Amino acid sequence: MPAQRRIDLVLESVKRLQRIGADANLLNLLQKQHPADLAQIFGELTERDRRDAFALLVERYSRLAMEAISELEPEDGAAMLGDRSAEELAPLLQELPSDDAAALIEHLPDEVSAQVLELLERREAGDVQNLLEYAEQTAGRIMNPHVFALSEDLTVGEAIAALQTSRDVEMVFYVYVVDVRRHLVGVVSLRRLLLVSTETPLKRIMTTDIMSARVDTDQEEVARVVASYNLLAMPVVDEEHKLVGIITVDDVIDVIKDEATEDIYRLAGMAGDEHVSTPAKEALRKRLPWLGVNLATAVMAAMVVALFQETISQVVALAVFMPVVAGMGGNAATQTLTVTVRGIALGELTWGNSRKALVKEMLIGLGNGLVLGLVAAGVAWAMQGDPILGMILGLAMVLNMLVAATAGTLIPIVLRALNVDPALASSVFITTLTDVFGFLSFLGLATVFLSYLS
Amino acid sequence: MPAQRRIDLVLESVKRLQRIGADANLLNLLQKQHPADLAQIFGELTERDRRDAFALLVERYSRLAMEAISELEPEDGAAMLGDRSAEELAPLLQELPSDDAAALIEHLPDEVSAQVLELLERREAGDVQNLLEYAEQTAGRIMNPHVFALSEDLTVGEAIAALQTSRDVEMVFYVYVVDVRRHLVGVVSLRRLLLVSTETPLKRIMTTDIMSARVDTDQEEVARVVASYNLLAMPVVDEEHKLVGIITVDDVIDVIKDEATEDIYRLAGMAGDEHVSTPAKEALRKRLPWLGVNLATAVMAAMVVALFQETISQVVALAVFMPVVAGMGGNAATQTLTVTVRGIALGELTWGNSRKALVKEMLIGLGNGLVLGLVAAGVAWAMQGDPILGMILGLAMVLNMLVAATAGTLIPIVLRALNVDPALASSVFITTLTDVFGFLSFLGLATVFLSYLS
Repeated sequence: MPAQRRIDLVLESVKRLQRIGADANLLNLLQKQHPADLAQIFGELTERDRRDAFALLVERYSRLAMEAISELEPEDGAAMLGDRSAEELAPLLQELPSDDAAALIEHLPDEVSAQVLELLERREAGDVQNLLEYAEQTAGRIMNPHVFALSEDLTVGEAIAALQTSRDVEMVFYVYVVDVRRHLVGVVSLRRLLLVSTETPLKRIMTTDIMSARVDTDQEEVARVVASYNLLAMPVVDEEHKLVGIITVDDVIDVIKDEATEDIYRLAGMAGDEHVSTPAKEALRKRLPWLGVNLATAVMAAMVVALFQETISQVVALAVFMPVVAGMGGNAATQTLTVTVRGIALGELTWGNSRKALVKEMLIGLGNGLVLGLVAAGVAWAMQGDPILGMILGLAMVLNMLVAATAGTLIPIVLRALNVDPALASSVFITTLTDVFGFLSFLGLATVFLSYLS
Repeated sequence: MPAQRRIDLVLESVKRLQRIGADANLLNLLQKQHPADLAQIFGELTERDRRDAFALLVERYSRLAMEAISELEPEDGAAMLGDRSAEELAPLLQELPSDDAAALIEHLPDEVSAQVLELLERREAGDVQNLLEYAEQTAGRIMNPHVFALSEDLTVGEAIAALQTSRDVEMVFYVYVVDVRRHLVGVVSLRRLLLVSTETPLKRIMTTDIMSARVDTDQEEVARVVASYNLLAMPVVDEEHKLVGIITVDDVIDVIKDEATEDIYRLAGMAGDEHVSTPAKEALRKRLPWLGVNLATAVMAAMVVALFQETISQVVALAVFMPVVAGMGGNAATQTLTVTVRGIALGELTWGNSRKALVKEMLIGLGNGLVLGLVAAGVAWAMQGDPILGMILGLAMVLNMLVAATAGTLIPIVLRALNVDPALASSVFITTLTDVFGFLSFLGLATVFLSYLS
C-alpha cells in the first residue's frame, strides 16, 4: 500500500478514536507508527487534538513521542511541547540525540530553555550547549557530536569488536580513524572491514584522502559536497582538525529542502522561515515589511506615471496599454531571474561563465521582445485603430525586455559576488525596475511622438 | 582547502595547459580528478575546449571520462558525446551502470540511440532497454537494476563470503533477501551482519517489514519516503513483488533537487527542464509560449481598462495609481501562492487542513490590505490632493488583496485535488487575476464615485 494512503487510513482511525475517547486503542495505534508518520499525523490534527494525542503518547512512549516531534520543523515541535515546565521537559529532551534536542531547545521560550539546559545531565547539556555555540546554518550546528571513531592503532578484528559493543551511534557505515589526539586521519567503510582478515591494522586499509567539513563551514556547502560526491556522511572537524561530529545524508536532505524553500520564498519576496503552520499573526508580521517595501517601489512607479499625466490626458488609450508593457517586462524578468538564481544555487552558474549567460539572456530578451512586441503592436492597432500607438507599444516592449534580461542576470550575479544571497534580488525589486523603465519608455516615447498620435 | 576553491585552481591550470597545448600534463591533471569535479570543470570551459578536453581524457581513461559525463544533466552529457558514431559510443556507454547509460542514450539523436542499443552487449542492452520501457519520472526509470540480493536460505557467514566476491555493486549497505522466485522477503543491514555469529541463518535476523517502491511508483513519492524515513536506499519490485532494482539516496537527492527546480520554474512561468547551459535558441523556444499566454492575459487586463477610458479621461490621476493596485495585489498573491505550493510539495498542506489554510490566508490578506490600503490612501491624498481618490484606492486594495489571498490558496489546492501539478498555477495566471480584478474594482469604484472626484 502506498505510504500516503496508509497514513491517511491511520489518520482517520486516530480521529475516530479521539472522538469516541477510546484512549487505550488510540495509544496502541499510535505506538505502532514510525516517528515520521506520527509527525505527519500530528500535523493534520487540530491544535487541541494534537496536544491530546501527544500527551497520551508521551506518557507511556516518551522516546517515540519525542522522535516524532523532532521530525517536525523545530518551531512547530517546540510549540507542541507547549507549556510544560523545564522539569518535565529535561527528561523528555534527554531521549533525543543532542543535535535534535538543541534545535528544539533553541525554539523554547528563553526562560524555559535556560532552565532546561541547567537540568539536563551534565554530558548532554555540554553537548547541547556546544552545538548552540556554533552559528546557525553551519556544519557545527547541524552535526551529531556522537561520532564513531577508532584509534589508528587498532586491527580490523578489534574494530569489529568495538562496533559490536557500541550502542546508539547514528547510522554507522563509515568508521572514522583518529590519532591519539583525536585528529582525523582516515576512514574505513564497513564493507571494507568485511573484506579483509581480522589481523590487518586499520592504518593499512584506511583511506587517508577524506573530505571533511569544518565546524564553521556553511551547511549549504556541506550539502553541495555530499550531494556531488555521493557521500553518505561527512565528518566534521574543529580548527585543529580534531574530529568533533558527523553530518549524515539525511541531515543533508533536510538542508537541501530548506535551502530550496528559502530560495523559492525569497524570489517571491518572503522570509524563508514561514510554513503552512505558521500562525496568521506571525505570517502577517513576516510578510508585511516586504509588501511595505513593494508599496514604496510601486509609489515610485506611480510617480513616473504622474510625470506624464499631461500626455495621458491627451491620449487616454495610453493608460490602457501601460499594464501590458509593465506586466510583460516583469514576467520576462522573473523568468531570467529564476534561471539565474537557481543556476547559482545549483553551482551551474559561476563568475567564470557569467558573461556567456548575460549575452544569452540578452539575446532571449531581444527575441522575446521582437516577437511579442510585434504581436502587441498589432493588437493595439486593432483595438484603438492607431498604428503609431502600436509602434510605440512594440518599441517600448523591446526596450523593456532587454532591460529585464540584463537586470535579471546582472543583479543576482553581482549580489553573489558581494557575498549577498542572490535570491534576495527578489522579483519584487526586479519588477519595480521593469515597471519604472516600462512606463518611462512607453510614456516617454508617446510624449515625443505625441503630435502623431490620434 | 574548500572544495570549490580547489576546483577553481584546477580549472585555471586546465585552461593554461590547454592554451599552451601541453596535452600530456593536461591528461595527467584531469585523470586525478573526481568525476563530479570533472563535470564541473567541463561545465566552465567553452564548448570547443570542453570537447577537446573530453576527447583527450576519453581515449586513455574512458571510464572516468564517462563517469564525469554522467554527472552532468543527461541532455548536456549527450551533447558532449557529440557527433561520435554508434560504434564509438557503444563501448563507452558500456563503462557506465545501466541507469546512467539509459539516461544518456535517451538524449542521443533517435537514429544513433537505436544503433547503440543494437551494438551494446546483450545483457547490458537488455538492462538499458528495460529501464527505458518504464515511464519517465518513475522508480523503474531511475533505479539501478544491479541490486545485491541473497537467498533466504543462506547463513550470515555465506552472506559475508558472497559480499566479498561481489564486484561493481553500487554502494552496498543493506543486503536484500529473496526467496527462490526472487520475491523480496527481507533486508539485513551490513552492521547487523557484523554483530551476529556466522552460523545464524539470514532468515532469522532479517527485517521483514520492508519499505519498497514499485517500478511504476512516481519518483517524487520515492524521494518523499526515503527522506522522511531517513533511508539510505529503497528496493524496487515489479508487479509480482519480485526484486528488480535499487534506488540509492544519492539518486533521491537528484530527484529532490530536480523537483525543487521544477516547482521554482513553474511558479515563474517556465518549463522545468531549462538550465543555464541550455542554448539561447532553445531557451527562447521554451519561454516564448509562456510569455505568449501572458500577453493574451495582459491584453485581457488592458481590455478591462479600456472599458473605463471615459472615466480615466475625466480623472487622469486614476492612471497614476492603477499600477499600485495591480502590483500590490500581484505581489500578495505571489506570496500566498508560494507558501501554498511549497506546503503542498513538502506535504505540510493537505486536503484535510486546507480550510484552515484558506482562513489564515484570507485573514493575512485582510490585514495586509487594511494596513497597506490605508498607507496608499494617504500617499494618494498627499500626491494628488484628493481624499476621495485616496479612499477609493485604499478600498480597491483591500478588496484586491482578499481576492489575491483566496485565489492564491484555492487554485493550487483545487489543482492538486484534480491531480494537476499545483505549481502550474504559476504567478502568471494568478497575477492576471489580480490585475483584472484590481483594475475592475479601482476603476469601477472611481466610476461610481466619479462626481465626487476632483
